[in-house]
Amino acid sequence: MKKYTYSFEEGNKDMKELLGGKGSNLAEMKSLGIPVPSGFVITTETCKLYYKNNKSLTDEIRYQIDAKIKELEKISRKKLGDNYNPLLVSVRSGAAVSMPGMMDTVLNLGLNDESVKGLAKKTKNKKFALDSYRRFIQMFGNVVMGIASRDFEEILERIKDKNNIYLDTDLNVENLQNIVNEFKEVVQKKTKKEFPQNSNEQLYIAIEAVFDSWNNDRAIIYRRLSGIHGLLGTAVSIQEMVFGNMGETSGTGVCFSRNPSTGEKKFYGEYLMNAQGEDVVAGVRTPLEINMLKNQNLEIYKELVEIKDKLENHYKDVQDMEFTIQEGKLYFLQTRSGKRTAVAAIKIAVDLVDEGILSKEEALLKIEANSLNQLLHKQFCIKDLVKNNPISIGLAASPGAAVGEIVFTAVEACEKRCEGKNVILVRKETSPEDIEGINSANGILTSTGGMTSHAAVVARGMGKCCVSGCDDIVVDEKTKTLTVNGEEFVSGDVLSLDGSTGKVYKGKIITKDSELSDDFMKIMQWSDEFRKLKIRTNADNGNDAKKALEFGAEGIGLCRTEHMFFDVDKIKCIREMILANDLNSRKKAITKLLPLQKQDFKELFKVMTGLPVNVRLLDPPLHEFLPKEKKDIKELADEIGISQKKLKQKISELYEVNPMLGHRGCRLGITYPEITQMQATAIFEVAKEENIDIEIMVPLVGDVKEFVNQKKIIFDVANKVGISNYKVGVMIEVPRAALTADEIAREAEFFSFGTNDLTQMTLGFSRDDSGKFIEEYIKKGIYNNNPFEKLEEDGVGELIKIAIKKGKMERRDLKLGICGEHGGESESIEFCHKVGLDYVSCSPFRVPIARLATAQAAIRNS
Amino acid sequence: MKKYTYSFEEGNKDMKELLGGKGSNLAEMKSLGIPVPSGFVITTETCKLYYKNNKSLTDEIRYQIDAKIKELEKISRKKLGDNYNPLLVSVRSGAAVSMPGMMDTVLNLGLNDESVKGLAKKTKNKKFALDSYRRFIQMFGNVVMGIASRDFEEILERIKDKNNIYLDTDLNVENLQNIVNEFKEVVQKKTKKEFPQNSNEQLYIAIEAVFDSWNNDRAIIYRRLSGIHGLLGTAVSIQEMVFGNMGETSGTGVCFSRNPSTGEKKFYGEYLMNAQGEDVVAGVRTPLEINMLKNQNLEIYKELVEIKDKLENHYKDVQDMEFTIQEGKLYFLQTRSGKRTAVAAIKIAVDLVDEGILSKEEALLKIEANSLNQLLHKQFCIKDLVKNNPISIGLAASPGAAVGEIVFTAVEACEKRCEGKNVILVRKETSPEDIEGINSANGILTSTGGMTSHAAVVARGMGKCCVSGCDDIVVDEKTKTLTVNGEEFVSGDVLSLDGSTGKVYKGKIITKDSELSDDFMKIMQWSDEFRKLKIRTNADNGNDAKKALEFGAEGIGLCRTEHMFFDVDKIKCIREMILANDLNSRKKAITKLLPLQKQDFKELFKVMTGLPVNVRLLDPPLHEFLPKEKKDIKELADEIGISQKKLKQKISELYEVNPMLGHRGCRLGITYPEITQMQATAIFEVAKEENIDIEIMVPLVGDVKEFVNQKKIIFDVANKVGISNYKVGVMIEVPRAALTADEIAREAEFFSFGTNDLTQMTLGFSRDDSGKFIEEYIKKGIYNNNPFEKLEEDGVGELIKIAIKKGKMERRDLKLGICGEHGGESESIEFCHKVGLDYVSCSPFRVPIARLATAQAAIRNS
Repeated sequence: MKKYTYSFEEGNKDMKELLGGKGSNLAEMKSLGIPVPSGFVITTETCKLYYKNNKSLTDEIRYQIDAKIKELEKISRKKLGDNYNPLLVSVRSGAAVSMPGMMDTVLNLGLNDESVKGLAKKTKNKKFALDSYRRFIQMFGNVVMGIASRDFEEILERIKDKNNIYLDTDLNVENLQNIVNEFKEVVQKKTKKEFPQNSNEQLYIAIEAVFDSWNNDRAIIYRRLSGIHGLLGTAVSIQEMVFGNMGETSGTGVCFSRNPSTGEKKFYGEYLMNAQGEDVVAGVRTPLEINMLKNQNLEIYKELVEIKDKLENHYKDVQDMEFTIQEGKLYFLQTRSGKRTAVAAIKIAVDLVDEGILSKEEALLKIEANSLNQLLHKQFCIKDLVKNNPISIGLAASPGAAVGEIVFTAVEACEKRCEGKNVILVRKETSPEDIEGINSANGILTSTGGMTSHAAVVARGMGKCCVSGCDDIVVDEKTKTLTVNGEEFVSGDVLSLDGSTGKVYKGKIITKDSELSDDFMKIMQWSDEFRKLKIRTNADNGNDAKKALEFGAEGIGLCRTEHMFFDVDKIKCIREMILANDLNSRKKAITKLLPLQKQDFKELFKVMTGLPVNVRLLDPPLHEFLPKEKKDIKELADEIGISQKKLKQKISELYEVNPMLGHRGCRLGITYPEITQMQATAIFEVAKEENIDIEIMVPLVGDVKEFVNQKKIIFDVANKVGISNYKVGVMIEVPRAALTADEIAREAEFFSFGTNDLTQMTLGFSRDDSGKFIEEYIKKGIYNNNPFEKLEEDGVGELIKIAIKKGKMERRDLKLGICGEHGGESESIEFCHKVGLDYVSCSPFRVPIARLATAQAAIRNS
Repeated sequence: MKKYTYSFEEGNKDMKELLGGKGSNLAEMKSLGIPVPSGFVITTETCKLYYKNNKSLTDEIRYQIDAKIKELEKISRKKLGDNYNPLLVSVRSGAAVSMPGMMDTVLNLGLNDESVKGLAKKTKNKKFALDSYRRFIQMFGNVVMGIASRDFEEILERIKDKNNIYLDTDLNVENLQNIVNEFKEVVQKKTKKEFPQNSNEQLYIAIEAVFDSWNNDRAIIYRRLSGIHGLLGTAVSIQEMVFGNMGETSGTGVCFSRNPSTGEKKFYGEYLMNAQGEDVVAGVRTPLEINMLKNQNLEIYKELVEIKDKLENHYKDVQDMEFTIQEGKLYFLQTRSGKRTAVAAIKIAVDLVDEGILSKEEALLKIEANSLNQLLHKQFCIKDLVKNNPISIGLAASPGAAVGEIVFTAVEACEKRCEGKNVILVRKETSPEDIEGINSANGILTSTGGMTSHAAVVARGMGKCCVSGCDDIVVDEKTKTLTVNGEEFVSGDVLSLDGSTGKVYKGKIITKDSELSDDFMKIMQWSDEFRKLKIRTNADNGNDAKKALEFGAEGIGLCRTEHMFFDVDKIKCIREMILANDLNSRKKAITKLLPLQKQDFKELFKVMTGLPVNVRLLDPPLHEFLPKEKKDIKELADEIGISQKKLKQKISELYEVNPMLGHRGCRLGITYPEITQMQATAIFEVAKEENIDIEIMVPLVGDVKEFVNQKKIIFDVANKVGISNYKVGVMIEVPRAALTADEIAREAEFFSFGTNDLTQMTLGFSRDDSGKFIEEYIKKGIYNNNPFEKLEEDGVGELIKIAIKKGKMERRDLKLGICGEHGGESESIEFCHKVGLDYVSCSPFRVPIARLATAQAAIRNS
């Protein structure tokens, strides 16, 4: 016979999966000797079975619940629904992972028209009994019977108004009796049913209601947004009620063992006397700071402090606790790990190590790596922020805070920047042509494009604030206007962007710089002690590289050479090259490019002295370099001396239906070997003069013969330049490359997984277009995450594993890295650790995340 | 010590890889007792080594050649380069696979200023000796020394003119001596070197020249175009010369044991007396039909017939032979399998079985399956064809012959068709909107797009002639003109298209229908006896299905439902649906579509009574259905009552950067479940009334949950309609689907490999764009074939194997098929057989190819 119910005495903190976080911690507290009202837990498996059974409880489950209720009656010497000595219970939800406020709870269950009298008589406190009863009817009526809270609140307010009462606690017996009567009438009216008087019936429908709340909309959304998957359901805790509303010697509160916002080691919390839990958050009476309790009841305060210390020591983590004082006696109703900000997480972790509570390994695991993001970018002053309402919300594409005048073109952005102004670049979507504009802007706002759109990727790479895919903004680049909810903004109007929340504000909000604390540096150092993976960065200029080195990068994992081509001088040569009609004129154009390209590398390589630098050959389709606007086409046509018609024709010849799968990557270097020659020459000639470990990476290889073709060109150039200390390898981003990795490894010295493109091709998701359906997919549970954010392991990950296995078989010392966006995301990094990569590479601002995440992966999998 | 040389006595016909086709067959003939001049073969491995050694022959190779020459001198009792009794040899190329005329040959080697005198004295025929010498100088001068043939021909013509001689054979000794002298002067002048007089030197540089010719341009191109890969190189046959130019009792000829054009069992060939081999093809003297030899020399004729019968019986195949008669004695110089037309291949195969020479299995293997294509479409009358020169050549995208007035829009095509005119639709490229136009046209001509462009795929599907990617044609759809090489054609001008060659002709060329012979039907029946795979067809209307059934299809493997949506009524509803702002209006539009869609299925299902029909749910991105032209946008906006601006906005919202990887396939059915509901309803309501095995296929699945989502909708509809006898499965075309096939197979009853898309994603090749670099790739040997034509086995094939393995592990009776273009290509079909598919599905006109290819695969792998 399956066991569906566990009394607290039968559980412990390691049974979260089965008993939920709340249930298992109640059991644990019980075993620690902490005063916890008696009770039992109905398991999460029961919830699953409930759904499987078309939302009904089997006889066996009911039987086991009844047995536990009997036990509880025995312990409490009370009886559920009894007219003289009624047992009152709370019925609370609690899944394995905390979902605060998302599911339902019923308190004071067991009261009815008769038992309320018994309770009054027994406690000699009619007011308390009626107060409990009116609370019960409202909560049960709302949660279980589906009546709007408003319907009850109105009655309460009316009666308070009528009697000139401000606080609930000032209601007298008569008031409360009237409220109870009217509450029951509302129930009758709204549901055409009496308020249930049978307490067993109350119990069962309350349990069912809690199970039902597992799948209410907000719970589903919360799980989706929090990335919670694979749970069985919610557990239900049934616990004897203790009452904070029995008068001024009673009360209730919530507290944290340390400050969850700053991490300061200071008891933190608030409480209310003569109240039940919901009053603390309701906001009519302002709760008191926890240290006020010292004055009110020193004994209780001391006990509280003692227990919170005990719990923190026991759980080795900040605790978030609920307690109730019933007529001078303290009870604990909940304890759990406290949610905290990134700042707090770091301080707490360091302090707990200093205090000898945690080992360094344990401390590192307490910090959510991805949350470090919050610490590295400019931030808004919270005080100023809360005063303003956002005018729109888009995707939080790249964190940070930006304030500036809006502009609609890259040129405008550069111009205003030169005038010393702060600028926000507003575009429908950005393209590589906008790169200088992005560089000049403080923040980027786009109306389309997802978390990995061009704007988002580039902005994150530069550590620049970006809000992308801001759907309800209409950008008209011609008239240079931005319209949102009927309000129009023009060039020069000021907006503020919060890249950490995706919110867009009108006007200026005050910002402040982020500061990296000593504690932060300590966490980074500890991380370095444990991590196995090296950390590199994706950077293609000296500034980015410098920033990354400050953050702790140990090399460059991806230097994209195409970004270099977008400044005015270079794009001219590139365009000339693309439009060349024969090899000679192409070579001529390329020759002009060589010294410019060398200059780029010079700056970068100088910064990276002594470290490995991986340079990727030209990757994007050539038409990305060609002008799109009429004006630019005219200009270019004049410049290179061909007709506009001819130029347009050339541009349209280069048009591709699916550029992602088109003429790009090494396909360019194969059809135009001169490009590879020039790039290799630039790289080697500079590398020869600088002290760096140079690696050249061939992109978009699908067949080893493509690589061999390019390697030969690179090799010949190296010979000519007279350099021998370099590596040539492959970016693995085409599924076929992974599937034929054995052949490729025979020729290539390293693999770097380009997981952006590998995801696109393995899943058949265009990064630019998939926003349209991925959201729907996540909503419907088809994918748990956006695969461009978290590495998709069953398909993309499988290909990576195949590639590693086949590759290592042919070349034992094959160097392995990742340079897609996933290289800076903690779960993906753990995957990289597990499959045995040598390094991850990510944008400079994600280097600290990668340092911590690699350490966590090493600790978790040691 | 490696053996580099084999005398004919040491070889046999199974040593082709090593001795080349020519060498191994000479050896075989020798062993059959057929008169073959003595000689030996230098192996193909030697050729490889030659290239490895920077194009030089090692001492060991030279030593072995010298030894064989000594043997030959012993047998012939002559001596190479001897002044009195010279040995003359031929030096011929010959790879394992026949590459007729692509590589070099030198005849009469061993002559010099002295030995020619010896030859004259020995044969008492000075004229013959000088004739041989002038031939040798010309051939050696051209092939080995690189002098243009023209330089020699001019001398020859001049001397003939001067002496009023028409035929070479009429040159007298003096003429010939002058020719020899002038030839030698040309050599001196052009190369600044004497014509080599040392015969050993002649021999070595001739051998090297033959090896060099392995990698001359035309040989490389030939191998590429013929799909010949992986050979070591060419062998070289060195053989004692026999002379057809010794007077009127000597001669030379080529012959086939049967007619290679019709297959008729009739000795076929031509010959010339007093001539050497090259004279037969040179065209100055018209060769005689082979049966004329009967009158000239009955003995020799009889011997020839006897030997050709012997060879055909021995090789069990039509032989293509070369012979020489030297002073009344017959010698065979070559035999090989005769190249033949598809018609001939069929007749010969059937006849050889009837004659008891071949088993059915052997006969089937003699026919090249892909060549059946030639037999199924309308054809031009060869006689009329050769009178015309093409004005352009594009890709032979879909075979057949089409003549008609050119039109530039689908609408025009339909109109002219209604007037009873034959039409050729000319477009830059076609889109799904053109479908009715394509249907109305006799042929399609596009200036861009490859072998698998929209036009090509649709045309092949319809068995319609198509020439695509006709680069040098400029199509201006606005002015409705087509310009090629400065000549302009307008609507109504007549063109003729040859879809089997890609040639485009001005004006009308006479066409004829193809007729399927009884022999053809017999081959089909025999194929059915051996094949293991079932054959289905890709068809989405009754006409195509009927055609396919005639050709022997056993079901439908892919009914694309989107083609159905392009006629006027339906596209209106589809557009209304796409443009709907809410669920209700969308549902309204879809409801209108239901009866129309049912009508489509009714027609198709009726034709397919008793057979399986696989219907794929809507697949293409929705914007394909929206209008692109200004006029059409206006019309549609008026019709559905929204502003043009709004409509344009909607269209631009649906724009995708990479539509191939965008919002399409099951992603549509998931975001708009109403579409799947409607389609399933239409399918089931019709299927219920007809007797067919219905299969519903969900496209573009990448995760099992996508499939489960769609299956649930289909299942619910089936329940509602009251049908239970159906299957639901998945089109495997996303790499991730293959990688997670185990999970998918738990839910899906069948897999059908959509190898077009699977190729696109696995290789990262956009079908529409890859033409730009695939040609270059094939040229550079990176890919051997266009992967959209022949299934790419290392990547795409590997994923198919993974999918099958994982799928079968979960579901033993998983039904497996292929529905990509590869399902009608013989090598790909062999792959399908080997990996254990249940059926292949291809366009109707490829069904016969598939029948034969599946049989061949079964026979080859039994």
